[in-house]
Amino acid sequence: MNQLRLKPTPQSLPTPAQKQRAACWFTELQGQFCVALEEIEQEYATQKGGAVQKFQRKDWIRETHDNVPGGGGNMALLKGQVFEKAGVNASEVFGQFSKEFRAQIPGADGAVAVARSAEQSRQEYEDGAFWAAGISLVVHPRNPKIPAVHMNTRHIATRFGWFGGVADLNPVFPDAQDVEAFHAALGRVCGTDTPAWKKECDEYFTIKHRKKPRGAGGVFFDDLNRGDWEADFALVQALGEAVLKAYPAIARRHLFESYTPEEREAQLVWRGHYAEFNLVYDRGTKFGLMTGGNVDAVLMSLPPEAKWL
Amino acid sequence: MNQLRLKPTPQSLPTPAQKQRAACWFTELQGQFCVALEEIEQEYATQKGGAVQKFQRKDWIRETHDNVPGGGGNMALLKGQVFEKAGVNASEVFGQFSKEFRAQIPGADGAVAVARSAEQSRQEYEDGAFWAAGISLVVHPRNPKIPAVHMNTRHIATRFGWFGGVADLNPVFPDAQDVEAFHAALGRVCGTDTPAWKKECDEYFTIKHRKKPRGAGGVFFDDLNRGDWEADFALVQALGEAVLKAYPAIARRHLFESYTPEEREAQLVWRGHYAEFNLVYDRGTKFGLMTGGNVDAVLMSLPPEAKWL
Repeated sequence: MNQLRLKPTPQSLPTPAQKQRAACWFTELQGQFCVALEEIEQEYATQKGGAVQKFQRKDWIRETHDNVPGGGGNMALLKGQVFEKAGVNASEVFGQFSKEFRAQIPGADGAVAVARSAEQSRQEYEDGAFWAAGISLVVHPRNPKIPAVHMNTRHIATRFGWFGGVADLNPVFPDAQDVEAFHAALGRVCGTDTPAWKKECDEYFTIKHRKKPRGAGGVFFDDLNRGDWEADFALVQALGEAVLKAYPAIARRHLFESYTPEEREAQLVWRGHYAEFNLVYDRGTKFGLMTGGNVDAVLMSLPPEAKWL
Repeated sequence: MNQLRLKPTPQSLPTPAQKQRAACWFTELQGQFCVALEEIEQEYATQKGGAVQKFQRKDWIRETHDNVPGGGGNMALLKGQVFEKAGVNASEVFGQFSKEFRAQIPGADGAVAVARSAEQSRQEYEDGAFWAAGISLVVHPRNPKIPAVHMNTRHIATRFGWFGGVADLNPVFPDAQDVEAFHAALGRVCGTDTPAWKKECDEYFTIKHRKKPRGAGGVFFDDLNRGDWEADFALVQALGEAVLKAYPAIARRHLFESYTPEEREAQLVWRGHYAEFNLVYDRGTKFGLMTGGNVDAVLMSLPPEAKWL
């Protein structure tokens, strides 16, 4: 959100039809991720036995004051043999940011808005109205040899409209081939922006108090508006599809690898650090908690089990 | 820290001898807590068998830039049969607050300081110098019928000096007799301030996003300076001694109670919420991470194991 490329022109706001297309895509992609991960559960059970678990879906409605509608979402949660906890959440929310929060969001802060575009009424700037749709994916595999993964893409509109996206691989024991494959898949989508977005990802996913990265990185952007909504949307779609293809391949590579109790223990401690990042630093988590998002959906990212020795 | 009673007079700053007495007391109390909890481990092992675990102690030095001394502390950690994780940390740290942090600390912010006491040099106000000593106790018992407990008392000096204290009982399954005994012990120490400090405790230890308390409360004050250092220090000592006496009695009441796997599971989920509070809201944790405190000591409060279903 630091270097906002977008300009406060009417063209920078998505149309209702564009918002609907984006929201529908996020829901569509949610379904595709559920299918892809359930297939792996099936493959594992075919060889190893045990029950084939499916995603459980739950609709949620955003709580607002005075019964004002504020959107909601659908959370799909899998607790499987392979994927100890996998969550895929698609949501579409709208309303008004709280006064405290507006200053942190481009286009939702009256003061900045007035300075940028004086011809519009102050009233309109100061209302802090927002609309946001997105998909979040967080996968915590049981086997510590299979990396965890995170992906979030979103479309946000205040007085401006923009896309944000992030995808990062989070191995307990980084494997060069996995990391290269994941990064290469993202690089094919992000093109010349890859180095900058990779750098932003590395900076963002630093557990500052531990002076170490949360994972093996990927890409991160939070300001995508190049003045061509179709092109921006296509990139965001391609990013989701890249993860949808790359991650299952990585998971399959390690599906039947054995691991020791010590490796499991190392995973649980690693997950504690992961939880620290999400609760102390993650903007998406703060955004969710501050906008009255569904707590279970916002904190879906937290690991199923963690240890602090 | 909201309603600071202290005044920026020279008398409100502790003398070097007073600082030393406070720091020594926190270390003394640390030792007493270690003994009290180890006794319970011994009693349990005598009846049930198993190894008697002792506190492991570790000195740590606060990291500062350019090798400037910044104090340090001692962390005592027990991983026992009764107390799955018990930490008692005594520390004495000093240095300068970062610019970002000064505005949040009474007496460390140049602007406020100048307004309050114009005769002193601006230079002196703006340096953000601080000294702090304290003891932190966090106990996570294995048996979900034994409540967790938290206590922290501290003495802080910037341009002012004050004491802070907090003690709260954190049962997974609240038992009225435990809660009453714990609160009564604190009430005997805090006297007429008890209702206000109990209210502050309840407000502070609210997991806002879950709209529920972290535990069963206790007392919380962060501004104790009544102009009589001896009286203030005596209260802080008495608070520590009250917890030292009340908590082991509560733990012993439940020492041999049985529990089900479902109760253990409930405890692990409850601990996840506890960790959320500490990482998202706790000022002490933020203070520690922002002042370059020892990460292990700062995050000692996190539960040994937690689940997010």
